[in-house]
Amino acid sequence: MASNIQVKGNPAFARIPPWVTAKLRPIAIDKIQQVYDWIENECVPAERIYKAQLKEARWTTPAIVTELRKKAKAQGLFNLFLPNHFEESPGLTNLEYSCCAEIMGRVYWGAQTLNCHAPETGNIELLAKYCTPEQKKKWLHPLMNGDFSSAYSMTEPDRASSDATQVGIKMDITDKEVIINGRKLYGNCKYNNEMQIFILMGCSDPNNKNPWNRHTTLVVPANTPGLKQVRNLSIMGYDWAPEGHGEYIYENVRVPRENIILGPGRAFEIAQGRLGPGRIHHCMRLIGQAERAYELALVRCYEPRKKPRGKFIGEFDSNIERIAEMRMTIDAMRLVVLNAADTMDLQGNKAGRYAIAQSKIMVPNALLKVIDEAMQMYGGQGLTQHTPLPEIWTYARFVRVADGPDSAHRHQVGRDQMKTAQAFRERAEQYTARYKELCKKWNLESEEFWGIV
Amino acid sequence: MASNIQVKGNPAFARIPPWVTAKLRPIAIDKIQQVYDWIENECVPAERIYKAQLKEARWTTPAIVTELRKKAKAQGLFNLFLPNHFEESPGLTNLEYSCCAEIMGRVYWGAQTLNCHAPETGNIELLAKYCTPEQKKKWLHPLMNGDFSSAYSMTEPDRASSDATQVGIKMDITDKEVIINGRKLYGNCKYNNEMQIFILMGCSDPNNKNPWNRHTTLVVPANTPGLKQVRNLSIMGYDWAPEGHGEYIYENVRVPRENIILGPGRAFEIAQGRLGPGRIHHCMRLIGQAERAYELALVRCYEPRKKPRGKFIGEFDSNIERIAEMRMTIDAMRLVVLNAADTMDLQGNKAGRYAIAQSKIMVPNALLKVIDEAMQMYGGQGLTQHTPLPEIWTYARFVRVADGPDSAHRHQVGRDQMKTAQAFRERAEQYTARYKELCKKWNLESEEFWGIV
Amino acid sequence: MASNIQVKGNPAFARIPPWVTAKLRPIAIDKIQQVYDWIENECVPAERIYKAQLKEARWTTPAIVTELRKKAKAQGLFNLFLPNHFEESPGLTNLEYSCCAEIMGRVYWGAQTLNCHAPETGNIELLAKYCTPEQKKKWLHPLMNGDFSSAYSMTEPDRASSDATQVGIKMDITDKEVIINGRKLYGNCKYNNEMQIFILMGCSDPNNKNPWNRHTTLVVPANTPGLKQVRNLSIMGYDWAPEGHGEYIYENVRVPRENIILGPGRAFEIAQGRLGPGRIHHCMRLIGQAERAYELALVRCYEPRKKPRGKFIGEFDSNIERIAEMRMTIDAMRLVVLNAADTMDLQGNKAGRYAIAQSKIMVPNALLKVIDEAMQMYGGQGLTQHTPLPEIWTYARFVRVADGPDSAHRHQVGRDQMKTAQAFRERAEQYTARYKELCKKWNLESEEFWGIV
Amino acid sequence: MASNIQVKGNPAFARIPPWVTAKLRPIAIDKIQQVYDWIENECVPAERIYKAQLKEARWTTPAIVTELRKKAKAQGLFNLFLPNHFEESPGLTNLEYSCCAEIMGRVYWGAQTLNCHAPETGNIELLAKYCTPEQKKKWLHPLMNGDFSSAYSMTEPDRASSDATQVGIKMDITDKEVIINGRKLYGNCKYNNEMQIFILMGCSDPNNKNPWNRHTTLVVPANTPGLKQVRNLSIMGYDWAPEGHGEYIYENVRVPRENIILGPGRAFEIAQGRLGPGRIHHCMRLIGQAERAYELALVRCYEPRKKPRGKFIGEFDSNIERIAEMRMTIDAMRLVVLNAADTMDLQGNKAGRYAIAQSKIMVPNALLKVIDEAMQMYGGQGLTQHTPLPEIWTYARFVRVADGPDSAHRHQVGRDQMKTAQAFRERAEQYTARYKELCKKWNLESEEFWGIV
Repeated sequence: MASNIQVKGNPAFARIPPWVTAKLRPIAIDKIQQVYDWIENECVPAERIYKAQLKEARWTTPAIVTELRKKAKAQGLFNLFLPNHFEESPGLTNLEYSCCAEIMGRVYWGAQTLNCHAPETGNIELLAKYCTPEQKKKWLHPLMNGDFSSAYSMTEPDRASSDATQVGIKMDITDKEVIINGRKLYGNCKYNNEMQIFILMGCSDPNNKNPWNRHTTLVVPANTPGLKQVRNLSIMGYDWAPEGHGEYIYENVRVPRENIILGPGRAFEIAQGRLGPGRIHHCMRLIGQAERAYELALVRCYEPRKKPRGKFIGEFDSNIERIAEMRMTIDAMRLVVLNAADTMDLQGNKAGRYAIAQSKIMVPNALLKVIDEAMQMYGGQGLTQHTPLPEIWTYARFVRVADGPDSAHRHQVGRDQMKTAQAFRERAEQYTARYKELCKKWNLESEEFWGIV
Repeated sequence: MASNIQVKGNPAFARIPPWVTAKLRPIAIDKIQQVYDWIENECVPAERIYKAQLKEARWTTPAIVTELRKKAKAQGLFNLFLPNHFEESPGLTNLEYSCCAEIMGRVYWGAQTLNCHAPETGNIELLAKYCTPEQKKKWLHPLMNGDFSSAYSMTEPDRASSDATQVGIKMDITDKEVIINGRKLYGNCKYNNEMQIFILMGCSDPNNKNPWNRHTTLVVPANTPGLKQVRNLSIMGYDWAPEGHGEYIYENVRVPRENIILGPGRAFEIAQGRLGPGRIHHCMRLIGQAERAYELALVRCYEPRKKPRGKFIGEFDSNIERIAEMRMTIDAMRLVVLNAADTMDLQGNKAGRYAIAQSKIMVPNALLKVIDEAMQMYGGQGLTQHTPLPEIWTYARFVRVADGPDSAHRHQVGRDQMKTAQAFRERAEQYTARYKELCKKWNLESEEFWGIV
Repeated sequence: MASNIQVKGNPAFARIPPWVTAKLRPIAIDKIQQVYDWIENECVPAERIYKAQLKEARWTTPAIVTELRKKAKAQGLFNLFLPNHFEESPGLTNLEYSCCAEIMGRVYWGAQTLNCHAPETGNIELLAKYCTPEQKKKWLHPLMNGDFSSAYSMTEPDRASSDATQVGIKMDITDKEVIINGRKLYGNCKYNNEMQIFILMGCSDPNNKNPWNRHTTLVVPANTPGLKQVRNLSIMGYDWAPEGHGEYIYENVRVPRENIILGPGRAFEIAQGRLGPGRIHHCMRLIGQAERAYELALVRCYEPRKKPRGKFIGEFDSNIERIAEMRMTIDAMRLVVLNAADTMDLQGNKAGRYAIAQSKIMVPNALLKVIDEAMQMYGGQGLTQHTPLPEIWTYARFVRVADGPDSAHRHQVGRDQMKTAQAFRERAEQYTARYKELCKKWNLESEEFWGIV
Repeated sequence: MASNIQVKGNPAFARIPPWVTAKLRPIAIDKIQQVYDWIENECVPAERIYKAQLKEARWTTPAIVTELRKKAKAQGLFNLFLPNHFEESPGLTNLEYSCCAEIMGRVYWGAQTLNCHAPETGNIELLAKYCTPEQKKKWLHPLMNGDFSSAYSMTEPDRASSDATQVGIKMDITDKEVIINGRKLYGNCKYNNEMQIFILMGCSDPNNKNPWNRHTTLVVPANTPGLKQVRNLSIMGYDWAPEGHGEYIYENVRVPRENIILGPGRAFEIAQGRLGPGRIHHCMRLIGQAERAYELALVRCYEPRKKPRGKFIGEFDSNIERIAEMRMTIDAMRLVVLNAADTMDLQGNKAGRYAIAQSKIMVPNALLKVIDEAMQMYGGQGLTQHTPLPEIWTYARFVRVADGPDSAHRHQVGRDQMKTAQAFRERAEQYTARYKELCKKWNLESEEFWGIV
């Protein structure tokens, strides 16, 4: 059944490449339009309302968000991210969701109004994948319903977190309960009392010979005694309230054994499973943030009060070139992300691993430059609260380290590529053999060059 | 009808993104495989045969190319580039052809063996589009048949060629003939006697009020008296024999009036029509060249004779990161090119204008860095004839100016984008209006920030 | 008389290039050492003390700063920046001061403890240059004595501030007083009651035919009725309390006519005079900030708790290369700044204009990359308050727009350079003439190439 | 005694920074002026004469160079590079010579007319340092006299040349002679019969326990039987005739034992000694080449025949910014090189090691961008022989690998820096200790942040 929505000339679809538009099913077209209207009408104009409310109560979800979440859920706009192979999914593919997510990303907290924000999306996917029905009832369903929110807690202050086998927080598993001791960095703040559970990875069997079997993942209710938040972690000076990032101490924190997910020692199975679409939701949304930055740059280009030497700054050809560069960079990065989403749809998350890493590495790096250029086009004003650009930039910078710094991902990609070298060395030898045949045929002496076969 | 070819795990298809593979028709799958086998077996190993033969007779097509062209034509591998909406087309879409073109690009002269080289592809498309049947018989069919080759001649030494209305070579059109006087830069060398016709743009009506109606395009046989090649133009020191680039003087060169294409004063109509897929064939092939550079880098990474401090250079983690960066850059650029090809297929050449420019600007710039890095990984040897890398780099550098320097294209993209600024300014005003409503609703004072609406 | 201080092997002098060390007079050697000891002992370890005190009283100068200022003044360490050609100067050249300033820059508020902070340094220089003895007594001496602090106010929200002739705030000059109306952006916050005067540039004669004679500079006491601070301007989210940046409304602000500096309509003379060393004090200090970032990166390289795959991150050769790149970039930028300072010393501020602009443009751009890399080497932690890196980065980013965005300065440099083009065109013609002579001598035909003479 | 030459406003001194001008002795001022006049009058206008003569006899020194060398020697302009601590030196410091070398560099073969070209400068310095009086008579004096030329031969095709202990060419040392077998890459071509000696490094004692005592350096006359040049090595396609680079096979090449320099097994002592000023002569000259590129860009900016959309390209503000960027980059790189030269003068070659590496790494990388930009400003013409830009670029690219690829040098710098990390870690601990004291003093609780001390 076709959608009633006209795609051509429709701003909601303006930057979607034709190959993607051609694959959108009517349901997706409808959802994209709904999300677009939602963000444009309810969220972008409300950015300063959000800030004003937050100023009043720093660690409380602003009333406008609470209201919008209620409304969005009623309209069936919740949890769009969950891919259509899950029974709980509202039915979109990863590719289709990407188009929605970019739009949500236009406002930093836009995804939250639609229950598609981090770390909820990754957590919900994890719980949907690995929980027992009882566990789902306790944690998955309320999360999907927006009743409370969750945090994911893996990084530690005193370990090299890019090497997950080093995760060291101690979990003593007894018959009835698990006793946890140690420290964690990152994971949302429990200052906000909507944040009710931590999904925690820790070390339960440090002497197991197999380093991949030493760890356990479980759920810790935020109000468990012994769990203390040391401080809010600021990101480039921002507290990112009302969710924020926290630093935690666990002192004899006890949770029931049934809070273990999948089973003791199976944290890496879960971690593996978490390496799916959730890893590029940040990238998708970041493209929306970059589009906002780009639009603000265009708005500035024709600001009538800002005409150095009597010309709109959009009339200076250096800015014309800058705008072109910004436009093309965003569009190229969108192609990278959409290709990753589509690869997961067509070939599964595992096959998408490279494309996911490619997004994770390239997108924030490239978009940081775009956003920085937009700030620079605003001159001194560009760094102030007069525009959302500083926050947009900071979010992009954060994405460059979230889920591991880009060098760690680049290493992974590079190591995988190195494994293909041998095949090319063999092919080079075949070329040489064939070259020698051809020399005979054409009556030429074969030349030898050192260094390559 | 399905193809018999297994795509999965097949190196011919290894870097094609899933969304493209999914769209390939059986005929395309077959052609890609054929082109792959052709290039891998007939061309890559023959690179030094080509050079050796060329050394003997600098401005003559090497015998191996002549032989391969005959063989390829017999196998139905000629002219794959001509999009399937032309009656003369062998039937591929632009997207499908892109996959072939990248493979052809692995060897600089690979496309030539398949009659898919520049400027032939652009010229053939132009002639197919605008010629009368008589003209087609004289020029199009022999070109498609590979009987002779052609040049395209627009740039002039004493004009700003990025502004085509400045083209100044004089064309006096009489009843019977056109008399041509002036100078041209670029256009292939007529040293090679297979090069038999120039498609020439000149100024036939300099006083016409409409600057877009002053120019005429016509065919000049290379052996016409008065047409003198001043010199071969080297590109970064390379003569690019046996085709090369030329610098020309026209002194009273006379061609029959019926050599005019489309009609006097209609050069810009033709130029417009030429702005299609031909513009990104260079980019498509350049990706193949970059893949070669990448493979050579990988080959070097495990060269057993080159182990500084006892380690393969592929074991140094700086090189691991470099390889990752190279891999991701090539893949991102492929997405840009494929998207441009697909956009032309789905929405026509005109709608593809932006995506074409995006390829033209981004691809050579990004790939130059990849190729340069590959050279650097070879150390001093990387700059010598021991590897094809210097020629690959030079080709990429050339593509950055071919068809206009990137700044000219960036300007065009930027100017088009600036036209969208007004819409965003209006949207910003709507946001503000809505913000004021929301302030009332939430009982907040509206804040004013200067500089943005 | 020689200094008793041993320079060789002394960390205070470690990164000063030999050509500079060779020019340091004993007095400078002593001061550099004193400043070094001061910053290392009193400031670096006190960074978190400063923050803790600031947390208690956001817009009050922290007690530790007040104490340190008293102590520093007693030790004769105040106002080192004022070049030795001023009678009020403590006696250092610009070059010598640069060495001090870099060290001060190691801590963001280090310069403030020595009364060498922005905008004080520029303001003091301005007042020293243009004030009458009475005015000096009222404003210059207390500022130099550290009795109160000042702001400089030029930028406006609704003008293109990079074009200073557009400054629009209205100044009605009567016999007795000046009445001011309009808006200003930037200039320190008057929330801090130590900030007692604004040096304000406004438009007093909008209809004067000569746009350079329309403006007047005067002093406005911060507590003048009608002067309202709208808000604190955050910079990338930081409020930079307790000084910060402000946004102001002037409503019928009245100041006595004798507050005018130099005379009505002479603001551009003053602005011109302000274009001296004060413009690169930010750059000098930024080098000190970058050194801190660099040292922190080194510290991380051998952090025993952070060993991914069992190795110090300083043992990964990618990090070895990064550290080298950081080291070399900082050192090159130091050369640029020192050369600018020295040029002013040897040839005057006017001759130094280019070198000043070169510093202003190159230094923050280059150092931003260094600092960003340092953050990235800390992974997720690098963006948090665990290190001073986010604030260091933000300061560098601010310097890129302070005193005009880099594109405005680049334009100025470029326009000056374009004026030299004609001389090179003439030289090219002389080359050609000489070439023709040589052709005759060597019996060669002269060749002509288009496009160059 | 003062020089009669007026420095101010003199183009020969225009880009020399004031701190350098202030240190130039009269003899240097005179020499700089002489070199400037020489290059401007005799060399720049003769560039195409050189090429025309070379075309006639590819591997013979062009007659114009031979003539100019005679004339220059007569004028006392030979060997200016040899630093004034050598008895054979004409008397300039490294810093003074740098100013000359940049000017020489304006023309690729300019230094050769003054006997200051590579590898002669490094070889002469080596011979002056390590030869016996008999050896000096045989090789040093004729080289300084310009009677013949020399090559330096270290790199090998089948070894990782950046690790010199791997040099593998076999030297069997007997009582009377040394018998050499193996292969070499690079070292000038012996096609040119002025090239008469190779300074060769080889492995004479492969089983010596100390890898630094295994190698020997000696002189091999180019016409020794058994020494065969396999081919000319092209650099990015250029043969760099008439000197060029060669690839060699040594088959039982016998030279008298007295050709050994310093003694068997002492090659690394010599190599160490060679790490002086010779290493940055390329960088000095490259700055002159970049200045030429820059001047050509300026010339193009006001080319009256190239006015797209009716404006000089120098009137487009994007080009204004580009010109500024080019100007500043060259000037910054000059500061880096001059500082390295001055450091060697003031503190010796060993202390200059870091500054030399800094030049070697930064200068070609930065200038490649400048030259590339200049080419791009010429559009398609910029890549052709219409300008010297492609050769200038190629030379810069060559310098990036000459004497080892930049990554090898970066490693060396980085490793040296890593050794300083411990001191900074200790300093960080002192900061912490002092912070705790201050906490007590100010009555604050000390905060702990993980990851840094």
